[in-house]
Amino acid sequence: MSLDIDTDMETLQAIQTRRSVRAFSEEPIPEELLRRILEAATSAASGGNLQPWGFVIVRNSRRLQALRALAPGIIGQPTALVVICLDIQRAEQLGGALGPRLAWIDIGLATQNLLLAAHDLELGACPVGSFHRRALALFMDLPSHIRPVLLIALGYPETKPSFPGRRPLMEVCFAEQWGEPYEY
Amino acid sequence: MSLDIDTDMETLQAIQTRRSVRAFSEEPIPEELLRRILEAATSAASGGNLQPWGFVIVRNSRRLQALRALAPGIIGQPTALVVICLDIQRAEQLGGALGPRLAWIDIGLATQNLLLAAHDLELGACPVGSFHRRALALFMDLPSHIRPVLLIALGYPETKPSFPGRRPLMEVCFAEQWGEPYEY
Repeated sequence: MSLDIDTDMETLQAIQTRRSVRAFSEEPIPEELLRRILEAATSAASGGNLQPWGFVIVRNSRRLQALRALAPGIIGQPTALVVICLDIQRAEQLGGALGPRLAWIDIGLATQNLLLAAHDLELGACPVGSFHRRALALFMDLPSHIRPVLLIALGYPETKPSFPGRRPLMEVCFAEQWGEPYEY
Repeated sequence: MSLDIDTDMETLQAIQTRRSVRAFSEEPIPEELLRRILEAATSAASGGNLQPWGFVIVRNSRRLQALRALAPGIIGQPTALVVICLDIQRAEQLGGALGPRLAWIDIGLATQNLLLAAHDLELGACPVGSFHRRALALFMDLPSHIRPVLLIALGYPETKPSFPGRRPLMEVCFAEQWGEPYEY
């Protein structure tokens, strides 16, 4: 490809420095970058390799405007949106009462790859869970077994987000059993 | 730190080359690496930054043996296991009927960071969803609001796993609306 794409961010560094970006410039995202982001998302592991997901990329400005109206969780004006969908038919193939829930984890695995790839490519991204699901499903022409579960706002970052903080490792990590201090 | 840790893997490369590893050598995992892996997991985004997760690291060989008995999904002999838990109390703070389900996505976001960090640190990892949840919760002394949702087998890879394949991008990615070919 002729694009001079900067992809030299070390993995742990990308993981540590990724932030949710909610302010975007008007600069459009090159198609090649969108493709790489989607390749990253679909490279995630999934239960039984079922890949119970689907992705719709929206870049048309009128459609973006309509989606913003359906999704109060979108802040700022992203230049692209990815609608991440759960394929209920595939999810149920995982089997057992927990099958469909485990498929939600698969969606998370793919989403984190997508977020890290965007960050690596110097784009900003923000997951959005707050939107009108039924209206969005209609608007996106989703078949009944395809459920929209998450939106990802994408664009070039306008500002550098601050770090919202994390719970201390000692509060969420334990050794051998719950409650035993993790002291590595 | 005195450890000579190789962490120079580019992010997209790590995403593309990560595989589920199911055969491990006996070489133990340095504590510093486990800490980095957990730091990566807890660096993930989460809805409302609620971080509805908990992690228990098991390295004791007798406890690993017991966990293998509770988890038919574990293949090979990992030198460490991470029990990834969902904090139902926090999950419910997300609000709405979908709150707890969105928390499963958060678990996926943290898990993918964990898997990529392990890969970057030249470790192998495999998510395992098949285990006796009630027995494992008892064995790990989990409080009632903490649910074990996923196990991650960890260790140095003994063999190089083959690529299980992925659905073609054209099958899972669409442009503007479902069914419209994605041709970037």
